[in-house]
Amino acid sequence: MKQYLKHDAWKIIEEGFSPEYNRISESVFSIGNGRMGQRATFEEQYSGDTHQGTYVAGVYYPDKTRVGWWKNGYPEYFAKVLNAPSWIDIDISFDGEVLDLAKAKVENFRRELNMQNGLLSRSFVATLPSGKKLAIEAKRFCSMADGEVGAIRYSITLLNASGHMSVILPVDADVVNKDANYDEKFWEEIYKSADADRAMVVAETKKTKFHVATGIAFLFKENDKIKPVNTCTETREKYAAIAFSTEVKEKVSYTIEKYAVVLSSENHKKDLLVSVAEQKLRNIKSEGFDKLFDAHHNNWLKRWEGADITIEGDIAAQQGIRFNIFQLMQTYTGEDERLNIGPKGFTGEKYGGSTYWDTEAYCLPFYLGTADQKVARNLLVYRYKHLQRAIENAGKLGFTKGAALYPMVTMNGEECHNEWEITFEEIHRNGAIAYGIYDYIRYTGDEKYLTEFGLEVLIGIARFWAQRVNWSADKQQYVMLGVTGPNEYENNVNNNWYTNLIAAWTLDYSLQAIDFVKQDDRAAYDKLIKRIDFKEAEESNRWKDIAAKMYLPEDSKRGVFLQQDGFLDKELLTVSQLRKEDRPLNQKWSWDRILRSCFIKQADVLQGMYFFEDRFSFDELKRNFDFYEPMTVHESSLSPCVHVILASVLGYKEKAYEMYLRTSRLDLDDYNNDTEDGCHITSMAGTWMSVVKGFGGMRVREGKLHFNPFIPDQWKSYSFKVEFRGRVIKVDVSKGSTDIKVISGDPLEIIIGEEKELA
Amino acid sequence: MKQYLKHDAWKIIEEGFSPEYNRISESVFSIGNGRMGQRATFEEQYSGDTHQGTYVAGVYYPDKTRVGWWKNGYPEYFAKVLNAPSWIDIDISFDGEVLDLAKAKVENFRRELNMQNGLLSRSFVATLPSGKKLAIEAKRFCSMADGEVGAIRYSITLLNASGHMSVILPVDADVVNKDANYDEKFWEEIYKSADADRAMVVAETKKTKFHVATGIAFLFKENDKIKPVNTCTETREKYAAIAFSTEVKEKVSYTIEKYAVVLSSENHKKDLLVSVAEQKLRNIKSEGFDKLFDAHHNNWLKRWEGADITIEGDIAAQQGIRFNIFQLMQTYTGEDERLNIGPKGFTGEKYGGSTYWDTEAYCLPFYLGTADQKVARNLLVYRYKHLQRAIENAGKLGFTKGAALYPMVTMNGEECHNEWEITFEEIHRNGAIAYGIYDYIRYTGDEKYLTEFGLEVLIGIARFWAQRVNWSADKQQYVMLGVTGPNEYENNVNNNWYTNLIAAWTLDYSLQAIDFVKQDDRAAYDKLIKRIDFKEAEESNRWKDIAAKMYLPEDSKRGVFLQQDGFLDKELLTVSQLRKEDRPLNQKWSWDRILRSCFIKQADVLQGMYFFEDRFSFDELKRNFDFYEPMTVHESSLSPCVHVILASVLGYKEKAYEMYLRTSRLDLDDYNNDTEDGCHITSMAGTWMSVVKGFGGMRVREGKLHFNPFIPDQWKSYSFKVEFRGRVIKVDVSKGSTDIKVISGDPLEIIIGEEKELA
Repeated sequence: MKQYLKHDAWKIIEEGFSPEYNRISESVFSIGNGRMGQRATFEEQYSGDTHQGTYVAGVYYPDKTRVGWWKNGYPEYFAKVLNAPSWIDIDISFDGEVLDLAKAKVENFRRELNMQNGLLSRSFVATLPSGKKLAIEAKRFCSMADGEVGAIRYSITLLNASGHMSVILPVDADVVNKDANYDEKFWEEIYKSADADRAMVVAETKKTKFHVATGIAFLFKENDKIKPVNTCTETREKYAAIAFSTEVKEKVSYTIEKYAVVLSSENHKKDLLVSVAEQKLRNIKSEGFDKLFDAHHNNWLKRWEGADITIEGDIAAQQGIRFNIFQLMQTYTGEDERLNIGPKGFTGEKYGGSTYWDTEAYCLPFYLGTADQKVARNLLVYRYKHLQRAIENAGKLGFTKGAALYPMVTMNGEECHNEWEITFEEIHRNGAIAYGIYDYIRYTGDEKYLTEFGLEVLIGIARFWAQRVNWSADKQQYVMLGVTGPNEYENNVNNNWYTNLIAAWTLDYSLQAIDFVKQDDRAAYDKLIKRIDFKEAEESNRWKDIAAKMYLPEDSKRGVFLQQDGFLDKELLTVSQLRKEDRPLNQKWSWDRILRSCFIKQADVLQGMYFFEDRFSFDELKRNFDFYEPMTVHESSLSPCVHVILASVLGYKEKAYEMYLRTSRLDLDDYNNDTEDGCHITSMAGTWMSVVKGFGGMRVREGKLHFNPFIPDQWKSYSFKVEFRGRVIKVDVSKGSTDIKVISGDPLEIIIGEEKELA
Repeated sequence: MKQYLKHDAWKIIEEGFSPEYNRISESVFSIGNGRMGQRATFEEQYSGDTHQGTYVAGVYYPDKTRVGWWKNGYPEYFAKVLNAPSWIDIDISFDGEVLDLAKAKVENFRRELNMQNGLLSRSFVATLPSGKKLAIEAKRFCSMADGEVGAIRYSITLLNASGHMSVILPVDADVVNKDANYDEKFWEEIYKSADADRAMVVAETKKTKFHVATGIAFLFKENDKIKPVNTCTETREKYAAIAFSTEVKEKVSYTIEKYAVVLSSENHKKDLLVSVAEQKLRNIKSEGFDKLFDAHHNNWLKRWEGADITIEGDIAAQQGIRFNIFQLMQTYTGEDERLNIGPKGFTGEKYGGSTYWDTEAYCLPFYLGTADQKVARNLLVYRYKHLQRAIENAGKLGFTKGAALYPMVTMNGEECHNEWEITFEEIHRNGAIAYGIYDYIRYTGDEKYLTEFGLEVLIGIARFWAQRVNWSADKQQYVMLGVTGPNEYENNVNNNWYTNLIAAWTLDYSLQAIDFVKQDDRAAYDKLIKRIDFKEAEESNRWKDIAAKMYLPEDSKRGVFLQQDGFLDKELLTVSQLRKEDRPLNQKWSWDRILRSCFIKQADVLQGMYFFEDRFSFDELKRNFDFYEPMTVHESSLSPCVHVILASVLGYKEKAYEMYLRTSRLDLDDYNNDTEDGCHITSMAGTWMSVVKGFGGMRVREGKLHFNPFIPDQWKSYSFKVEFRGRVIKVDVSKGSTDIKVISGDPLEIIIGEEKELA
């Protein structure tokens, strides 16, 4: 845990340069706009510790799977998040001396990310080894108003000398992934050009053949007035730059504005990329930094309007929740159904691929509550479009007849992960995708989605479950062998309660969906079942039988569900009995020791009780929470939020607040000692849920919105808004009073606590 | 399964060149001498499909572990069997045209391995593209009389022309491993020289810094008379060669004799390597091919004298058993306690490392029965010398206080394998190492071994088991969670019956060993327990408690032991219900499907019943065999032999014979479609056991030798010899008669069937 960042309601602030935390800061101060993004590396050269990272949504590289002993069914390739061509560099030197903060004396350093408008800025005074002292102010953004546009304003003032300044403004596609084997490079040059005021490189990814055109233009100003300069060009492989030199006077401010466009072949025809990029570059340069920034700023303000959560009386909590919302909004804007929410967003390359079950289980409610319905719908359609791949994926594992297994990690629908206990066994993910459909419809009421896309996905998943279980002659029930549940600190277990539960539920829900679609549009139904060869009588009877006779392990003595068969053979300890030096277990214990222990990485039985809350009594929930939570180490970023919500139901206020802090400031305070690799984007949606579903107690039951708010003792008040079926509802909670009202749209019956109100 | 090799009692014969099987032949025709060995690649250049492989015992490279997600406890490095500098090459060309069988018309090709004397020979007539026709005869051996010596006699006759022949005789250390990443090379040149009649390269392995000096000398003869030639030298990095050219006349035979020495720094001081090698090279050249071969031949004859098994009436079975014995003898001679039996011997690089639990569980009985007692003892001492490393290995997984976990795969005592379900979980191997001590002492009566080395190893292993179990409050017994049993088609199971059994047995046996050593040499005992801080009262009480209360799963209804908890939840099918296209499962099914199925890779419960046969009744054995064998796919080469032995006990003659054929001709007939990677050396000892312990029914009980022979219907007779406590016993079994006699040493009471006889 590190706490070098200042607390502020709207800003992330680093005061004084901390090179030892630089990679952490680069993650935390990352900026993006749904289409592209980048770590907060410096514009000028930096020879200190840094992890350069520029990312373009949807652009990836399929690296070759390398394992010790090959196991059938492994994907041949896995997707790497690609470090993309960089447009941010501004190389500066004075009389031949390079500006490099690792070699200069740095004073008054301040790095700031304004979350209200997505502006990353930096200012400092640097004294070069020669004694030259200069002041720098840098501002940069990735435009939320146009996802293909970025701009930098970089101002330099020599404080104690005049001199000769050389500037190089490159596009650099000669970049490398941190996780590349042997510094292998993944981009090839397709085209480059550089002239007096523009430079461009079109690079192609190996194997996947994505093209990305990155172009830059610039303006140079003296005291805010354009100052013409004679430029020359510099090119080498995968690199094109404009360079110029100029005399600079003491105490006069010089400004470089660097404009960038980043276009990908995902959105433009390859043969038009260069001309479209050139045109766009001319446009944005003539528009200028200020106007571009205004459009960007206004876009952010509009987004915050619907999504902000305010907390009074606890600045750390306020900053934390805004940081989470900010990151989510700049990672995924919901406009492109081909995209999804990468676990690190645009903040790092770790975990490869873009889509985990995190999307349905953790992120969907955030987008349902804060964005237009079509954003959440796009997340669902993304999976619909991957259905054929999911069927192929199941086929590789030996499943037949249209059974679909969605991948654990994916970019384009193909499985990208290759550890057998995850790829082959952590199949509960398939249930989360069905649950996402249910959750979306429950919230929006858009049952028609079933007819259009949902049912086909549900049938694919249900068919998988129906083949994945087997009849236990011993138990006289259906069992599911060899799975890994949400708690990845158990592998290859039999009868994981959560997995069995969500499988049986999927079968039930799919049967209901069939009934709905048959009623809704018989012709569409008939067409679908013909196309996918669905044998209704035979298949649905089997589903009914499995759902009715699914084995769900429990311990009747304790009155708890059992995470899996054999759980009670373990030595049942609590986290409080662990020595401090054993934590975190995943860094301190060998894997076999973790597996044998009772300790739980993230909610597992409790994940199921969270998903299907209404099936269980308060006492059941309490017994299971009291049994499992004390064994839970929360070493997944996805764990605390579920516990906030359940603790809130149970009235465990302190536990709820403790868990809330862990989720909301996870990256700001580097709780898990891994923020340097990037931020935990998907768990940030869990932070939002912690407030809205946890403290706010929001639920949708039978189409009605429920709230049951409480306020942590540490707070004075909090408020949030949610979109719900065409309305915006504002919830204000302070000590002793709750105010919930519809601030836009028709009146709505809302149930608060046990009472119904018309808001 | 492929059957292109001729049946013969003493020879392996390939008649007619089968380039499509060339890699298989290269494996099967491999030669070695315990110190070095090589695949049967051609002396002349070959541009067709080939897998060059030369190996030097004990010389390996620690490659870096690369896994997707790192798990604590993984070894940083794993050992690779290294392809070593090659001395066999003889590059020939005529008037500039290279002799290359891939580019010539080949007739009368014959490759032959004489198992009686370890001579690899080849003859053929090749027609070059130019029309030149030539006859070649090549003979090669790795001397069993001197493990550092090899020789080739290579004769060439031009049949239809005269011409100019160029010959290059290299030492080539510029070799690559098939399993190298990106063709990385593992040898560096330390020294090289070449002069008129000798060439030498000393190469060093990266990281491990082994030095290997490989030197060659030659003689050139015309019609068996030395013919002087003018030579020149060719050197480049890691390569030194002698070259010469000469006119050759039609139909005259020219012979190249290439003499080689291979010396490793494991056996010589590094700074003396060159001079010792030079001297040795001079000596063997002056001795000449024939004398060297005689010494080699005589050594083989002596070895066969004790180890041969004859089978009358079944030439395929006869050839099979001899092939197995031949390979075992040339892989491990037992003279060097630092060496062990690699799973591929000198026939391929697959599986890395040299030592698996195969050594104790499968190979030890062969060496006990066919070689001097010290050979088996050396195998035990090898593990004693690795005890500290085994303690460190357990430490990496979190075990303390002298607990030892022997590695799954090793070269020097460190773990070399890195899949968590094997490295961390397949811990039954530790029990096999204790069992090896027991088995050695049972056979030899050398109880003193406990005092000298055995007890310390047993205590280390017992301490591991005592920490690895945990008390199940639920079962009120000790349980062992998260293991992989001998059947690797199950991973991370709870309470593997075999593992629990051998763990409890180890604790019991260690307690007995303590009692023996206390009696035998109290001072030695006191010194030992002080040195290893053994708290006798406390530790041995815990061992007693665990051994007494170990949970051993069983199904009382069926009267069978359960392979692991939850086994009965599986769909219980038999192998006969599998479709042909599903076999072998490990090539056809995904890993998760294999794990969920009931199918068994190799004996697991039955392995335990084999080890501890006398604890179980005939009926118990029968019930378990009848339950498990039909589910067993025998996809480990180690599986059939155990089933031969148990089927023999049960009187299942046909099953015993079927399993015998699978083990004895596994590589000759390429049963598992993988012989091209090398031969299955360790399972070859299982073939020997199949005859001696299976058909012959040999057992040692309370110091007495037992036999209970039967003869498969397909055979007329069979006979074998065993060494036992200073005697050699010969067993002859034919239809209707059994003759067992001591042919050397004192008379001995031998129990045949149920009757005692003095032989």
